[in-house]
Amino acid sequence: MRIGTYASHSALQILKGAKDEGFKTVAFGRERVKPLYTKYFPVVDEFLVGEYPERELLERGVIVIPTGSFVAHLGIERVESMKVPYYGNKAVLRWESDRSLERKWLQKANLKVPRVYEDPDDIDKPVIVKFHGAKGGKGYFLAKDSRDFWRKAGINSKEDLKDVQIQEYILGVPVYPHYFYSKLNGELELMSVDRRYESNVDAIGRIPAKEQLELSLSTNYTVIGNIPLVLRESLLMDVIEAGEQIVKAAEGLMGGIWGPFCLEGVFTEELEFVVFEISARIVAGTNPFVNGSPYTWLRYDFPMSTGRRIAREIKQAIEEDRLDDILT
Amino acid sequence: MRIGTYASHSALQILKGAKDEGFKTVAFGRERVKPLYTKYFPVVDEFLVGEYPERELLERGVIVIPTGSFVAHLGIERVESMKVPYYGNKAVLRWESDRSLERKWLQKANLKVPRVYEDPDDIDKPVIVKFHGAKGGKGYFLAKDSRDFWRKAGINSKEDLKDVQIQEYILGVPVYPHYFYSKLNGELELMSVDRRYESNVDAIGRIPAKEQLELSLSTNYTVIGNIPLVLRESLLMDVIEAGEQIVKAAEGLMGGIWGPFCLEGVFTEELEFVVFEISARIVAGTNPFVNGSPYTWLRYDFPMSTGRRIAREIKQAIEEDRLDDILT
Amino acid sequence: MRIGTYASHSALQILKGAKDEGFKTVAFGRERVKPLYTKYFPVVDEFLVGEYPERELLERGVIVIPTGSFVAHLGIERVESMKVPYYGNKAVLRWESDRSLERKWLQKANLKVPRVYEDPDDIDKPVIVKFHGAKGGKGYFLAKDSRDFWRKAGINSKEDLKDVQIQEYILGVPVYPHYFYSKLNGELELMSVDRRYESNVDAIGRIPAKEQLELSLSTNYTVIGNIPLVLRESLLMDVIEAGEQIVKAAEGLMGGIWGPFCLEGVFTEELEFVVFEISARIVAGTNPFVNGSPYTWLRYDFPMSTGRRIAREIKQAIEEDRLDDILT
Repeated sequence: MRIGTYASHSALQILKGAKDEGFKTVAFGRERVKPLYTKYFPVVDEFLVGEYPERELLERGVIVIPTGSFVAHLGIERVESMKVPYYGNKAVLRWESDRSLERKWLQKANLKVPRVYEDPDDIDKPVIVKFHGAKGGKGYFLAKDSRDFWRKAGINSKEDLKDVQIQEYILGVPVYPHYFYSKLNGELELMSVDRRYESNVDAIGRIPAKEQLELSLSTNYTVIGNIPLVLRESLLMDVIEAGEQIVKAAEGLMGGIWGPFCLEGVFTEELEFVVFEISARIVAGTNPFVNGSPYTWLRYDFPMSTGRRIAREIKQAIEEDRLDDILT
Repeated sequence: MRIGTYASHSALQILKGAKDEGFKTVAFGRERVKPLYTKYFPVVDEFLVGEYPERELLERGVIVIPTGSFVAHLGIERVESMKVPYYGNKAVLRWESDRSLERKWLQKANLKVPRVYEDPDDIDKPVIVKFHGAKGGKGYFLAKDSRDFWRKAGINSKEDLKDVQIQEYILGVPVYPHYFYSKLNGELELMSVDRRYESNVDAIGRIPAKEQLELSLSTNYTVIGNIPLVLRESLLMDVIEAGEQIVKAAEGLMGGIWGPFCLEGVFTEELEFVVFEISARIVAGTNPFVNGSPYTWLRYDFPMSTGRRIAREIKQAIEEDRLDDILT
Repeated sequence: MRIGTYASHSALQILKGAKDEGFKTVAFGRERVKPLYTKYFPVVDEFLVGEYPERELLERGVIVIPTGSFVAHLGIERVESMKVPYYGNKAVLRWESDRSLERKWLQKANLKVPRVYEDPDDIDKPVIVKFHGAKGGKGYFLAKDSRDFWRKAGINSKEDLKDVQIQEYILGVPVYPHYFYSKLNGELELMSVDRRYESNVDAIGRIPAKEQLELSLSTNYTVIGNIPLVLRESLLMDVIEAGEQIVKAAEGLMGGIWGPFCLEGVFTEELEFVVFEISARIVAGTNPFVNGSPYTWLRYDFPMSTGRRIAREIKQAIEEDRLDDILT
């Protein structure tokens, strides 16, 4: 049994964690990045060039760990129909990728989510407006009221609204807690917390207001990296309960979620955690914690990353002969 | 002998550190957070529900480690009169909680502090105006001169000024160095450095100036978390000397300060460290460093957090039969 | 054989790393900072007071590790003529300190660099204007076009332009990848990544636009500290290839670069890495990683800092009798 993943996103961490737990590792992906995984960071035993070399993966007995990049590159349909054993619940993919299903899930879990406006004429407080299909955080804008929306949206009639999502703008600092739910143990773990480092939105604050106005900037949210965080300790139970509720809601809605996931939200000045999205897989925000996080060091006496935690779960499943419980 | 603390703030780190040094641990606090300390992060041997269960703590021979939350919840009077052995000098509490005493302490230590204006008509440079009793950083504003002060303050006469503190506004990046003074060894240690992550003040920089002006924001400084930092090496002696001077000044003023403390200030573009406040206990800014900080790894060959350093001091006191020197 | 360096910048890390690899260590510098290296962080076996005590260093068989502070304090001429064995290629110093040579190097390496305007009347997009000799990041301003340049520059004719550098303003988040090139193994390693924490430019984003405009701020880029980062994994090959190209270009231009170096740039919202400068020595941005970085933990099974990596290279050279290859 080997552990493998698509060579991007958080693969270094996943593969290093798998090796630490004694697995042979396989990565697949573009030829160009092969040296990253074999030479600069020797975390794979074998690198297969190809988007998804199914036959080779099956022959080698590989369990695939999904990442954001893997799903984005292959598309949901191909992931759903892939034959290689997949760690996690594939049924989650539909729920996560469809905005209205995702919202249903978050609401079923009793999480605080921003209000969504169907009709721009209802806008009664600042909103953030997103265009569907916008890649990598592009094409957002803020509007303070209906009039401002129509002025900025570049559309003239409500018939064009199907491409637009209008969401209450929640002012708060971005916080991304990373969870791991062990289906084998029935236990949720808080693994780490990060904030993203985004271009150009994390650059503009370094430009004085006067010059910003002269330069007439527009903002984007392209993720460039991640910065480690810890949360105020009195907020941890809120964050953990949010994770527990997500797990519980998923049981009813889609047969459960297990393994790593992340809630993407902000904390407001009233200490409220408002959640915008769920990532139902390992997120790149776990990458600062290859050698463990402030949270995993509280629980484990050796370095525990999310990648290693996945491998450990698979090892336990093998030992307990319960692989069928965690692969789909 | 056990080590215990109120279940919030930096308790996870304190209790983990105590266990690492071989102590049995006790936490007390709200029922709701019990799972945080027993299940999600199993750092306590016993969790007592209650704000301050004195009898149970005395029966179990617990030494209490004060945190910001503990003092805030119990109030100074109750902490001063508590019978459970307390790590640190209780006499510090008055000095730290009274703005004018705190200022006297910082000045006695020769630290650079911002000018305070008694009379708003004296304001001759930008100031930050704080209302007394403001909780969690709320109710601050900036004023550039006297006229601006009167326009924004919402008060009409100098008679209402008793609720207002007017402080020179120092432009610089926030820096929080964390110290530990070992009374047993007579040695100061620089443990780590962080900056706070505050809502909404760390969110507004991601909003372009143009949109900020449209949304007419007000700022708050509610602490949500902490981000690890290292300081420019040529600033370290300044920061260490500031800590030494605080320790020395405390000897004359209040019979000494020992254990962890933190100076809260900014570094200006002229590389000057201007100090606003002192926290005379462990601060939550040490929480990123459960597995040691860049500074403790220079001094210790094993993971040393501030929480663990406290436990180590108590262990040494027990071995040297000097507990009376460090408990009050 | 001992390892020594000037007592500032990244000396704590370098000296700790040297001790971890079994070397005796020497620091030299100002009397005032001696306690930092001997008492607070006991990383040196001997501290020599003096700017550059050549005779004592020669007598003790010290290999000097250059840092930014060392070169800045001594000046290039004295470093070039120093007799104490120097880790790295001294020929690099000229290339790094002369803006046009540095630019030639970056361009030879095919890196994307910002456009430089010789004639202010050519300015056709936002530029950042720097005055030569400006210390520590002072005296920068932004201009959006030619007219804006002349209005802000405070000079009246093109004859005064020799003191001015006009550079295309690239909007993106600052990213500083740290490399180590092992001349002995012919291998490049990505050690870590940071962003700087600068006063006052990292403070202004916390001031609302309205108040910024009232206060009429000017910005400076004085480095106060460093914050650890990880990069989006799909950007790592770009960053590594940039490093490889720098090494390759250096071979042709100046007989090679080896040991630590750093590229200082920004990532734009189009995921492009635009490089402003190269630091051809260890940078202070490696200081957060005394106990290893997320990247070194992928490659090494023990804590590896850049400082330790240098000592390890020297140890290997001694063992292989190849010291002449890496000292100049």
